[in-house]
Amino acid sequence: MPVLNDAARLVVTGGNLAHIVTLNADGSPNVVCVWTGMDGDDIVSAHLNTNQRKLQNVRRDPRVVLSYEPKTRNDQDIDEHLVVYGTARVEEGGGAELLQRLAHVYFGDERRFPDMDDPPAGFVLRVTPERVTGWGPWRD
Amino acid sequence: MPVLNDAARLVVTGGNLAHIVTLNADGSPNVVCVWTGMDGDDIVSAHLNTNQRKLQNVRRDPRVVLSYEPKTRNDQDIDEHLVVYGTARVEEGGGAELLQRLAHVYFGDERRFPDMDDPPAGFVLRVTPERVTGWGPWRD
Repeated sequence: MPVLNDAARLVVTGGNLAHIVTLNADGSPNVVCVWTGMDGDDIVSAHLNTNQRKLQNVRRDPRVVLSYEPKTRNDQDIDEHLVVYGTARVEEGGGAELLQRLAHVYFGDERRFPDMDDPPAGFVLRVTPERVTGWGPWRD
Repeated sequence: MPVLNDAARLVVTGGNLAHIVTLNADGSPNVVCVWTGMDGDDIVSAHLNTNQRKLQNVRRDPRVVLSYEPKTRNDQDIDEHLVVYGTARVEEGGGAELLQRLAHVYFGDERRFPDMDDPPAGFVLRVTPERVTGWGPWRD
């Protein structure tokens, strides 16, 4: 059974920011927010620049966490959130195409993004989910 | 000058969830969402149970990150987010009082929380901010 159930997949693909944690060389945590989608059972994000800290971090230590706020509340009136623990890897190419696909979701329209004539191929950060926590209907 | 400017303080105190990252004994990151407020220039959160993983982690390694989504967009139509790097410590007592204060903010009403007659004193997790990143007007 996939680690992410249908409710969790909807959060990942529903235009919610992912707070992604990677580990710096000194073991300290690094956090940025990214757009995400699913590719099969993996969570994917798109990046144009290989020198980004989070990509450098993942190449050295693949342990990552993604957390999301779906802006829903549970029956106790508490804000729900989804936390996904997984293992990440960086794939060459495909970044520009994925970024355009995600832009449609996150902007909610058909604009061109990135708005450049010849974007670099970029990179895809691919996370294989291993464990889910948080508040919400993430366990069937 | 404080690390958090007025705009950042408003995010921390404005009823936004904090995604807090702490480090497990094996160096892997742990993430949970918590309610936060300010006490002077520190970010504070309230906890009733001392056995929480995040409190155990902070006692061993004080490096933490808190990230927030204020649900605002910048002039490029990108969702803003605030990331605060800091050093944390756990203080004995004061947890129940702080939890009640934060409940007023996060629920937006005057309900009693926790709704128990004699709550434990609990703990306050106090984070001294050291560095701010993210997308938003966090640097004056």
